[in-house]
Amino acid sequence: MRETIRRALREDLGPAWRDLSTEALGPARERPAIGEVLVKADGVLCGIGVIGPVIELVEAASVSTFRQAFPTTIEPLAVDGDRVGAGTVVARLRGPVCTLLTAERTLLNLMQRLSGIATLTRRFVDAVAGTRARILDTRKTTPGLRSLEKTAVRTGGGVNHRFGLYDMVMLKDNHLTAMGGDIALAVAEARRRSGPAVRIEVETATLEQVRAAVAAGADLIMLDNMPPALMRQCVAEVAGRVPLEASGGITLETVRAVAETGVDYISVGALTHSAPALDISMKIRLA
Amino acid sequence: MRETIRRALREDLGPAWRDLSTEALGPARERPAIGEVLVKADGVLCGIGVIGPVIELVEAASVSTFRQAFPTTIEPLAVDGDRVGAGTVVARLRGPVCTLLTAERTLLNLMQRLSGIATLTRRFVDAVAGTRARILDTRKTTPGLRSLEKTAVRTGGGVNHRFGLYDMVMLKDNHLTAMGGDIALAVAEARRRSGPAVRIEVETATLEQVRAAVAAGADLIMLDNMPPALMRQCVAEVAGRVPLEASGGITLETVRAVAETGVDYISVGALTHSAPALDISMKIRLA
Amino acid sequence: MRETIRRALREDLGPAWRDLSTEALGPARERPAIGEVLVKADGVLCGIGVIGPVIELVEAASVSTFRQAFPTTIEPLAVDGDRVGAGTVVARLRGPVCTLLTAERTLLNLMQRLSGIATLTRRFVDAVAGTRARILDTRKTTPGLRSLEKTAVRTGGGVNHRFGLYDMVMLKDNHLTAMGGDIALAVAEARRRSGPAVRIEVETATLEQVRAAVAAGADLIMLDNMPPALMRQCVAEVAGRVPLEASGGITLETVRAVAETGVDYISVGALTHSAPALDISMKIRLA
Amino acid sequence: MRETIRRALREDLGPAWRDLSTEALGPARERPAIGEVLVKADGVLCGIGVIGPVIELVEAASVSTFRQAFPTTIEPLAVDGDRVGAGTVVARLRGPVCTLLTAERTLLNLMQRLSGIATLTRRFVDAVAGTRARILDTRKTTPGLRSLEKTAVRTGGGVNHRFGLYDMVMLKDNHLTAMGGDIALAVAEARRRSGPAVRIEVETATLEQVRAAVAAGADLIMLDNMPPALMRQCVAEVAGRVPLEASGGITLETVRAVAETGVDYISVGALTHSAPALDISMKIRLA
Amino acid sequence: MRETIRRALREDLGPAWRDLSTEALGPARERPAIGEVLVKADGVLCGIGVIGPVIELVEAASVSTFRQAFPTTIEPLAVDGDRVGAGTVVARLRGPVCTLLTAERTLLNLMQRLSGIATLTRRFVDAVAGTRARILDTRKTTPGLRSLEKTAVRTGGGVNHRFGLYDMVMLKDNHLTAMGGDIALAVAEARRRSGPAVRIEVETATLEQVRAAVAAGADLIMLDNMPPALMRQCVAEVAGRVPLEASGGITLETVRAVAETGVDYISVGALTHSAPALDISMKIRLA
Amino acid sequence: MRETIRRALREDLGPAWRDLSTEALGPARERPAIGEVLVKADGVLCGIGVIGPVIELVEAASVSTFRQAFPTTIEPLAVDGDRVGAGTVVARLRGPVCTLLTAERTLLNLMQRLSGIATLTRRFVDAVAGTRARILDTRKTTPGLRSLEKTAVRTGGGVNHRFGLYDMVMLKDNHLTAMGGDIALAVAEARRRSGPAVRIEVETATLEQVRAAVAAGADLIMLDNMPPALMRQCVAEVAGRVPLEASGGITLETVRAVAETGVDYISVGALTHSAPALDISMKIRLA
Repeated sequence: MRETIRRALREDLGPAWRDLSTEALGPARERPAIGEVLVKADGVLCGIGVIGPVIELVEAASVSTFRQAFPTTIEPLAVDGDRVGAGTVVARLRGPVCTLLTAERTLLNLMQRLSGIATLTRRFVDAVAGTRARILDTRKTTPGLRSLEKTAVRTGGGVNHRFGLYDMVMLKDNHLTAMGGDIALAVAEARRRSGPAVRIEVETATLEQVRAAVAAGADLIMLDNMPPALMRQCVAEVAGRVPLEASGGITLETVRAVAETGVDYISVGALTHSAPALDISMKIRLA
Repeated sequence: MRETIRRALREDLGPAWRDLSTEALGPARERPAIGEVLVKADGVLCGIGVIGPVIELVEAASVSTFRQAFPTTIEPLAVDGDRVGAGTVVARLRGPVCTLLTAERTLLNLMQRLSGIATLTRRFVDAVAGTRARILDTRKTTPGLRSLEKTAVRTGGGVNHRFGLYDMVMLKDNHLTAMGGDIALAVAEARRRSGPAVRIEVETATLEQVRAAVAAGADLIMLDNMPPALMRQCVAEVAGRVPLEASGGITLETVRAVAETGVDYISVGALTHSAPALDISMKIRLA
Repeated sequence: MRETIRRALREDLGPAWRDLSTEALGPARERPAIGEVLVKADGVLCGIGVIGPVIELVEAASVSTFRQAFPTTIEPLAVDGDRVGAGTVVARLRGPVCTLLTAERTLLNLMQRLSGIATLTRRFVDAVAGTRARILDTRKTTPGLRSLEKTAVRTGGGVNHRFGLYDMVMLKDNHLTAMGGDIALAVAEARRRSGPAVRIEVETATLEQVRAAVAAGADLIMLDNMPPALMRQCVAEVAGRVPLEASGGITLETVRAVAETGVDYISVGALTHSAPALDISMKIRLA
Repeated sequence: MRETIRRALREDLGPAWRDLSTEALGPARERPAIGEVLVKADGVLCGIGVIGPVIELVEAASVSTFRQAFPTTIEPLAVDGDRVGAGTVVARLRGPVCTLLTAERTLLNLMQRLSGIATLTRRFVDAVAGTRARILDTRKTTPGLRSLEKTAVRTGGGVNHRFGLYDMVMLKDNHLTAMGGDIALAVAEARRRSGPAVRIEVETATLEQVRAAVAAGADLIMLDNMPPALMRQCVAEVAGRVPLEASGGITLETVRAVAETGVDYISVGALTHSAPALDISMKIRLA
Repeated sequence: MRETIRRALREDLGPAWRDLSTEALGPARERPAIGEVLVKADGVLCGIGVIGPVIELVEAASVSTFRQAFPTTIEPLAVDGDRVGAGTVVARLRGPVCTLLTAERTLLNLMQRLSGIATLTRRFVDAVAGTRARILDTRKTTPGLRSLEKTAVRTGGGVNHRFGLYDMVMLKDNHLTAMGGDIALAVAEARRRSGPAVRIEVETATLEQVRAAVAAGADLIMLDNMPPALMRQCVAEVAGRVPLEASGGITLETVRAVAETGVDYISVGALTHSAPALDISMKIRLA
Repeated sequence: MRETIRRALREDLGPAWRDLSTEALGPARERPAIGEVLVKADGVLCGIGVIGPVIELVEAASVSTFRQAFPTTIEPLAVDGDRVGAGTVVARLRGPVCTLLTAERTLLNLMQRLSGIATLTRRFVDAVAGTRARILDTRKTTPGLRSLEKTAVRTGGGVNHRFGLYDMVMLKDNHLTAMGGDIALAVAEARRRSGPAVRIEVETATLEQVRAAVAAGADLIMLDNMPPALMRQCVAEVAGRVPLEASGGITLETVRAVAETGVDYISVGALTHSAPALDISMKIRLA
């Protein structure tokens, strides 16, 4: 996370690590101030932990002996995973106005995005409450932020699917085609090469493929873009021998129906590629 | 860009830089294939240039002499800025199926996001056609992707606002408060400290502040969250002496009315923090 | 791999990236030479692929226009996984004597270590030939070389266990103790938190624990430091429902007996922490 | 050292810096525990200093406020260079069980390797006790660990030879051949180009070459693979004018005889490329 | 700055981060000492802030428990921008003699260079006292030190010109030629592409060009290598509508005459590419 | 060198790696042009090799397919070490005008500095022609450029002293004081700890100290700030047994007299900390 924050600050402060606007204030930039991180819409909070490193990195770059004499303190008023309503102050910062102003945008850009993901995840999780289905994320994450975004999904009550191409085998249609369409062969080869630490998932589109995947010993079966009726058939056919994952364009409107087919997991790309940011701002006033 | 792509691939391929799923194919992973990058919704293309580096970095990590013997070729069929309709193939790749499969998600994650931004920008630009107003981005960008996202805004016909805290002075309400609310003093101090390379913008909320900013010699004046009628007054008052930027919650619905007040620039945070991804996929088939 | 090689060269060439000994030769350092990479003991070759990047990085640092005019060529005479006898030349290099001399030690340090691991792995694999047992590595790898060393294990015919703490759950005695010794609870909690991409292994020391792990739904069970007779009982008890991994101080002398108990996997830390280097040298002569 | 440790942790914790097994414990992962670093074989300790940075880096990655509230403390019970017997506890750690479990393998992998090198070095040093010979290391080190391994050699009582190609001139047979076999010319050229900060060593195989090297003003002369009788002749011939280094396949069995020829230094590649790890483990128990 | 200092220390301490000379002292290297940073010529101090990070990085690399027990303290006796006379002690350090000796050269190399720049800048600033002209730096800075050197210019009373190619448009003769010599077109195109955050400067050599640049709406006009008489004409012609920058081979001898022409800015490449180092040393004595 | 150039370009092009001025030209930026690197004062050329990597890195950042279609070619017309007169064109570049304009300053900043050092070194070397004295550099180099600057010293005919604290022992007055002022003890301890790869130099101020250093077996003796008459005495006393280095404020005016005392080396800090840049520019014209 620290590296991600450092990169974000470098984007904002440039190669000479400068904030021209606060420099322009001259000595007035060191006046004591209070900043309140204010959530402006209902949602699930995620990212409260970025405030500390952002402030720390902004301070570290400072050569002002003043800033060392008057460090910024952070008072967290909520924790990740809290459901927060519009108007909630989730943290209060006290420090020189320049530190708060320089840190503001970087801090908010991250918190807004992560809270947006946690909030959307929570809505999906709530929508399937009472079924056995759990909500999964995908690899459709923002380049450079995958790890933080997957944490946000967990914060919202979801479960992480694989983190990348390196921690699981997923045999999609193209992989199967390359193996002559032979699911049994594909799974056997995958098992032989991958060793006991690696799960193998098979993507299926028909009941026959599901049967083949079960027979081949798949650890997980993805039902790709199937209508709910067909999913239900698959659930009945598999009868709990292998967990099933529904996938493909599932929305808040359709997720309940999918969950009620009895699948174990529902993966939703939109959690990370389309979650609207949660509106969060920082109110700064001189102390 | 190269560094961003390398980071995205590292997220997907992990510390050992492996794709377990294509490895699981054994020798079949080297079968020749064709991949078509297919846009599935109307929009403005951005990011065609990421395909090359993604493929190159995926290939560089390969130790297979086969891949060197059978390199992947890229045939671009569109350029950044093209308006593309659903169903357009914007690039065709030929190479071993493993290279295409490993590169697919990283390549699409970036293209979808950048094209989404270019598409939304274009919609705003079209909405103000015929007025003098130009569409600006903000600093509300994705951490780590600011430079690419600002390029996407230009690709969609927008204009870049400052890149960060380091290349312009923006005196917001908090900066002015720290200077005792004295716009003239604040601008003079900023000018004295910043030198001739740096523009100074002043945020205003009232006609009086606009007058003060003009008198102080601001290079640019932001009209923050003003109703259109007030903006119109400001435009009349300033009479072209200083460019004016409208800002604050402006949407596709409201942007035309804002533009017709006569302001020079309209900044829209949503361009980068809320643009929905453009739906793009890769269709792979064995050659 | 490239980054590992660059680091190794930086250690050898220092901050100014210099080889004082070849510089001391003056113009004579550019005389054409032939270098033969010679294996001096029987073993399994691994690391032939490091020669290319080492040479490339050494050349890249050179400013001599001569070296560009007279690039080093590499003729591989064997591939990774080949069983090679003492006296085998596995690659022939042609280039200026300075390039060969500067690259020599870095290239050999890596090849010797990787071939040593592949060779030892092969000996273990051969020792269990005809049984169902497969040889696994561990996390007892050289800091900084894990990925390369795990490749060497595969090259020698072994299978990789998990790559790190990040791609699998392994519940050891301390983890179980922290959960009050309750295997069922520990596995259930692990499953709930980890999602469908992650396998869960349980370490056991008694038949009772093995039964509990099977009942809890473990994906893999480690038999830790059990005598072969007890392992045999466990194999009978589990009857193929969950794969079993034997672990704990297993040597070339004892591995056959362990394999004959019927376990699925045998993990051997010595593959990576104690494999003696395979003796490989480079014979250089002026062309 | 810090960078090496960070790299080792990154290998073990992956791109998202996670330990799935301790995460699987849920709140139980924060139970207080005691970890004892226990040496299980007689040897010379080296690497006690890695414990601190490993713990610090593991804690730095933690976002848990708990871990900050309950930091891990380290009580060192031995220092580098101590001769330790099997059963010695060399450090005691107190902290949350998750910190100890996550840090365990990285910490041990480094300490085992370094202590192994120090132990083997000490055996060579003891073997030549009473002679004038001192034990030297070589450049046959583990890629990425050279500096730490050379420290381990000093810890074991050895002396460091050059650190790389950048801090000394070593004229081997190939260098001499490139200069037409003329030792006087080679040394003169090396002296002229290298300046007064650089020592020049010449590799020799015959008494004639030793005489030529002395005459040429070499700072150090390597006796390469000479039988002891010939070494003795060289020692007599040189009569202390230039220090002599014996080199080439010297083992614990042969080193005493070599030392008794009167050479000043004996270099041993095995110190770093073949030292067996010293068996060290961590015993963790809940507090 | 921290990164620059780390790089400088890495150059001096090498890949194994060692100071052989203080190591050679054995235990005596830990004797307490006092180091005084002594300015040996009249000048303007700049760089007092590098002492802290240099000491901190030197200490961080130390594994000696002694150094932790006896940390180095820094007592600053002057601040950046102070005019200091020969013989002034600007800081006093107390710590083990090895820390002071290892840090000495890196610390002085930076302070001497930065103070040299501040001193020369101050001489130029003093030379134009009483005129409206302000002294600007250029991009002719030392590779790797631009940001620090530009800070030194501000410390000496100067003003920073652009930081690089990325924060301002400067249309020089070659740019204008590429646009067919049409200043109006060049400025209009630049304005259209660059947006409101970017200033545009035009380089001119004749009165006609100055007129054209004013008409085109340039934000700043450079008078390149003009004789003072012509500058005076330009000042009269422009009459304060656009700030003017004099440039081209201006020295301490000629700068007053240039300033008296009435230009707003005078840029001086020599500030950064030719400032002689201010002579500063460290006097160390045992405490 | 590549890393230094990349850093310099990053300073100039900023985090988004942009040249706003050439971007402002629009399509005209791709017009073919010729750039001539022109030396404008007599001197010794150094740095011709930076042109290639600068151009390559500038091109690599370009996404323009045009630039790939029209690569920049470099025609070197001189080599490092050439004595060049004012007016000499040392390289001719052909490429799109934007590539030349973007590369210009970075390329010149490096070449001017390195050629300045080579030129000054050559003047010192010429000044001592006919004596046995050779000209040495020091560690008073520009932070971040030490390796390149030491190459420039060799290019000018000088010899490199140690590269840093890591490749030689230098016992200065403070080191000797820490050892109780006992030169014999200090050298013996240094020898024992440092091994045979490391030279030991002793700084002396009196004839007695020189005698002690010879007796102690120093490899090199520095005569610090001695008057020529005393140096002459030291030369006579030492009689060639140990090389002698004169040091301390030696200028072009005094160097001949120092050389004629018979010392072996003269070290000059000014070579790197005070060499005036050689005036070099790039003349660009459209092709």
